[in-house]
Amino acid sequence: MSDMYRAKFEVHKEDPRSRARLGTLHLPHGDVQTPIFMPVGTQATVKAMSPFEMEELGTQILLSNTYHLYLRPGHELIKNQGGLHKFMHWDKPILTDSGGFQVFSLATLRKIKEEGVEFHSHLDGSKCFITPEYDMEIQEALGADIAMAFDECSPYPCDYDRAKAAMGRTHRWAKRCIQAHTKEDQSVFGIVQGAFYKDLRIESAKTLADMDFPGYGIGGLSVGEPKPVMYEMLEEIEGYMPREKPRYLMGVGSPDCLLEGVERGIDMFDCVLATRIARNGTCFTKYGRLVIRNQKYANDPGPLDEHCDCPTCRNYSRAYIRHLIKAGEILGARLTSTHNLYFLINMMTEIRQAIAEDRFLEYKKEFLENYNQNP
Amino acid sequence: MSDMYRAKFEVHKEDPRSRARLGTLHLPHGDVQTPIFMPVGTQATVKAMSPFEMEELGTQILLSNTYHLYLRPGHELIKNQGGLHKFMHWDKPILTDSGGFQVFSLATLRKIKEEGVEFHSHLDGSKCFITPEYDMEIQEALGADIAMAFDECSPYPCDYDRAKAAMGRTHRWAKRCIQAHTKEDQSVFGIVQGAFYKDLRIESAKTLADMDFPGYGIGGLSVGEPKPVMYEMLEEIEGYMPREKPRYLMGVGSPDCLLEGVERGIDMFDCVLATRIARNGTCFTKYGRLVIRNQKYANDPGPLDEHCDCPTCRNYSRAYIRHLIKAGEILGARLTSTHNLYFLINMMTEIRQAIAEDRFLEYKKEFLENYNQNP
Repeated sequence: MSDMYRAKFEVHKEDPRSRARLGTLHLPHGDVQTPIFMPVGTQATVKAMSPFEMEELGTQILLSNTYHLYLRPGHELIKNQGGLHKFMHWDKPILTDSGGFQVFSLATLRKIKEEGVEFHSHLDGSKCFITPEYDMEIQEALGADIAMAFDECSPYPCDYDRAKAAMGRTHRWAKRCIQAHTKEDQSVFGIVQGAFYKDLRIESAKTLADMDFPGYGIGGLSVGEPKPVMYEMLEEIEGYMPREKPRYLMGVGSPDCLLEGVERGIDMFDCVLATRIARNGTCFTKYGRLVIRNQKYANDPGPLDEHCDCPTCRNYSRAYIRHLIKAGEILGARLTSTHNLYFLINMMTEIRQAIAEDRFLEYKKEFLENYNQNP
Repeated sequence: MSDMYRAKFEVHKEDPRSRARLGTLHLPHGDVQTPIFMPVGTQATVKAMSPFEMEELGTQILLSNTYHLYLRPGHELIKNQGGLHKFMHWDKPILTDSGGFQVFSLATLRKIKEEGVEFHSHLDGSKCFITPEYDMEIQEALGADIAMAFDECSPYPCDYDRAKAAMGRTHRWAKRCIQAHTKEDQSVFGIVQGAFYKDLRIESAKTLADMDFPGYGIGGLSVGEPKPVMYEMLEEIEGYMPREKPRYLMGVGSPDCLLEGVERGIDMFDCVLATRIARNGTCFTKYGRLVIRNQKYANDPGPLDEHCDCPTCRNYSRAYIRHLIKAGEILGARLTSTHNLYFLINMMTEIRQAIAEDRFLEYKKEFLENYNQNP
């Protein structure tokens, strides 16, 4: 890995009553205030949204998916178009995942070898082979501010031997990623694995800490296990994660999990949940999830969430949004996606403010009391 | 029909070398400069677009479809929500069609009686019966600035007797619409029918002129006939359409047809073409239609149309838009719809300017020379 560039992370404050931290992550395309939720633009677009709208919502950093972009339109095409930032018209920071998780969950006929992973594209069945070195090449071509090391993600449940083998390979691959990476204005984060075994998780956290990555993902969680199991894993490893490096809980993004993650020392999150459920008409509100298709909203002139100040809630009624969603109109998906993204982005702003004012635990308690009511 | 309100139309100028006219249509929600293209918001939304974006594009008036809104969400629901303007968050003029065309093209098992039309909903098969009186009630509930009289639209081809019968019924229904209509701030336009028979078209234009509607639609054109046949019909009836009333060529909206229509004295147009082809990746450009899915645009960093100043062309490349359309991303449909709508709206602005400057025919010639090149 090049010595030229490593994302600099400053921890401004640690909550005296929890592991919550307040920080700033300095990246080539700008600073990111943490804890942060990163909206997901899987195919170089946050579904239903424009980059201008994402900026208006206060998005600080986007995530995009290496696996999807590698298959379509191809990383070389994006490189030729000036990189992902220019391609998708987004000038703020971007993080690309390694594609490891997608290879294990979307691709077919995958074969894991020490050298890399062979798989068939979920789009056209074509055969692909990705090694840690090639993964770095792909992510360098995409040109995000942060690339993730190529890892092997274990499923839930997973027996001990398999989890241990996947973890060991993840560590060896992490080293190869460091050696292969050359892009001077891109940081590579390592990924902690180890499934749901405390000793493996701790071993993984320690091993990767020794490799001195500028930041760490925690992978293989939120893959089907009960939430308390995930929280327990976070508690176990927290003490072994370098305090001066950002910690990114991958693929997690429900409001309650964001709070529980922050409490356990997590600085970064990403998830497609907000936009995925939005397109189907499920919306976050102060008092829990609202299913706009419900008949009771047919004549409701009020906003999705009367406590929300997002562009959707300022301008459109539940009755109209319900009509759009039921009629399959694109504007419906736009309005609900806007609302759900704003909800999480705004929530993270409130969380940062609460940490700054020493009232994170009180904020969390009040938030969950409201949210668990359900409308 | 109420005496209280009739849309006022001023003809500012008539082109000395064609039938093109420049006018202003005064409506309760604002003035409309004619000739005008009206984007279509079938289900109370212009597909893929927000009302704010429609305003930014310079839209003066929207069309919405009575048939669709009657079936879903229902005109009474919209009335209870304060009418269509408030429901869809659009404060400028709206025209609703009568639903006649849709009943004949979308509904199933339709039975035409003198009293009205019985049909089955294309959504759930439920039985409906619409009379001219009920149609006025529905359109009054929607509350557009302009309602269209309930008509019987003949197909192409159509034998003489059937066309004549449909025309006669359209005239009798037009009278019933006038008698039934009560909304004081809504104008009702009559619709000229007569299929492709000159004598019927002229008879229809004269009969409706005698009824003194504040404006006239020309229906039953662009239903599959060759374009020259449509142009001939327009030429035949032009002299029988009241000069002081706006003339609306229904369902027509390709760039060439807009020019030919304006030349033949048409003031208003609407069509779903621009947005329908956009969602599939076909874009209007100065040099004709561009099919963005074409492989040759895969690495093209240029805008859809280098002569275009729309938000899409100012910010996004062909390579990116092609990727979005091929990946089925909503943003792709948004960007192409934005572009195609801007293209027609801007074209009508240029047409009005050309008429004002006595160079409409020159503008038309140059436009078509470019447009027929194809990129």
